[in-house]
Amino acid sequence: MKAHTVYKTFNTTERREFVRITEDVQAAVDESGIAEGMALVSAMHITAGVWVNDDEPGLQEDVLEWLDKLTPPSWMRSSTQLSEALRPNPGDFRHHRGGQDNGDAHLKNLLVHHQAIVPVTDGRLDLGPWQAIFYCEFDGQRDKRLIIKVLGA
Amino acid sequence: MKAHTVYKTFNTTERREFVRITEDVQAAVDESGIAEGMALVSAMHITAGVWVNDDEPGLQEDVLEWLDKLTPPSWMRSSTQLSEALRPNPGDFRHHRGGQDNGDAHLKNLLVHHQAIVPVTDGRLDLGPWQAIFYCEFDGQRDKRLIIKVLGA
Amino acid sequence: MKAHTVYKTFNTTERREFVRITEDVQAAVDESGIAEGMALVSAMHITAGVWVNDDEPGLQEDVLEWLDKLTPPSWMRSSTQLSEALRPNPGDFRHHRGGQDNGDAHLKNLLVHHQAIVPVTDGRLDLGPWQAIFYCEFDGQRDKRLIIKVLGA
Repeated sequence: MKAHTVYKTFNTTERREFVRITEDVQAAVDESGIAEGMALVSAMHITAGVWVNDDEPGLQEDVLEWLDKLTPPSWMRSSTQLSEALRPNPGDFRHHRGGQDNGDAHLKNLLVHHQAIVPVTDGRLDLGPWQAIFYCEFDGQRDKRLIIKVLGA
Repeated sequence: MKAHTVYKTFNTTERREFVRITEDVQAAVDESGIAEGMALVSAMHITAGVWVNDDEPGLQEDVLEWLDKLTPPSWMRSSTQLSEALRPNPGDFRHHRGGQDNGDAHLKNLLVHHQAIVPVTDGRLDLGPWQAIFYCEFDGQRDKRLIIKVLGA
Repeated sequence: MKAHTVYKTFNTTERREFVRITEDVQAAVDESGIAEGMALVSAMHITAGVWVNDDEPGLQEDVLEWLDKLTPPSWMRSSTQLSEALRPNPGDFRHHRGGQDNGDAHLKNLLVHHQAIVPVTDGRLDLGPWQAIFYCEFDGQRDKRLIIKVLGA
């Protein structure tokens, strides 16, 4: 069994960003020399996620708008009564007592999930025709790390 | 290390369907000859999911009703004000500008997640007594693929 | 390739609880003798989850409050109209026809996800500085099992 590990650091311009990383994951597979196996792609932070979906900017705008309704940031006015109702009862996140303002990003991490496992067949990421891999930053503008670990033979 | 890959194609009668695939995944494990390892079960589409839960039709109805409230389809009237509030602000999904009508299915894919990893012990899927594996179709009635990849020894 | 499997049983005092298991997973890695690989951490029940996030009690309270709004328990009065709207249309979960009252815990399992895969590098869980692993009980006070399966070399 072979294993190959790559760490990527992201420092996004925007607070929230979807960064396409399909090619980075394929590059890690190429370096590994693994033909059959799996690539684990996992954010090493608790306010970011990894999402496998369509590389379509409209969809990403839809997703962020919808996530903001379900997990309203404390630094943003809610657009709907719904989002008001979803705010924590004490008025702000208990998590913010330590001086943070990223409680919503923890919830986005929960919904999106912080990792994905991509099958590797014949040395290639075995994805469907529309599947792309994204690092989803929900509290960026500072260095954050991602691990890519390829296992196989 | 051994690896064994199986592709399944689904073409569901209904637009949305939960298809039990526990036995298909076990069959892939049997064919692989792997005693100790993991089976990655991953939808190759961006509007389908894989869910490990109870094989109970009432629960599946509950889940679909609840998902439709949280991720309201544009082709369905909302049953609640909540779902109206969760619709995208431009009135319809930006993603639909390309002629699609399956934006909600992308969000369902995000919530349900498109994959699961099942442990394999002694040549058997090492699931709890109530755990069954489902392919969750959210935009069907056409050919869609799933990959089952078993890795181990 | 080596494989090592550990089962843990939880019987929580509270109906819902977050139990830190980072050290249990590391212990399983130590016992395995595996230096490079992955640890699959997976609830064997359909009303529990595994979550990788911050070990911060305020955040866990935030998460449980928010989950209860999105997936309102039938045994709890809703604090918001939102949660009323998210209740199943027949008034109660169809799943409860069999005498259960844990429908909401199935939905929490869906949102939190029942498993996580942790990379193992140099014999250590390769987690970011704030990442801890939690078993998330949503219907406890009885024996429930978790599987930790370490694979690698």
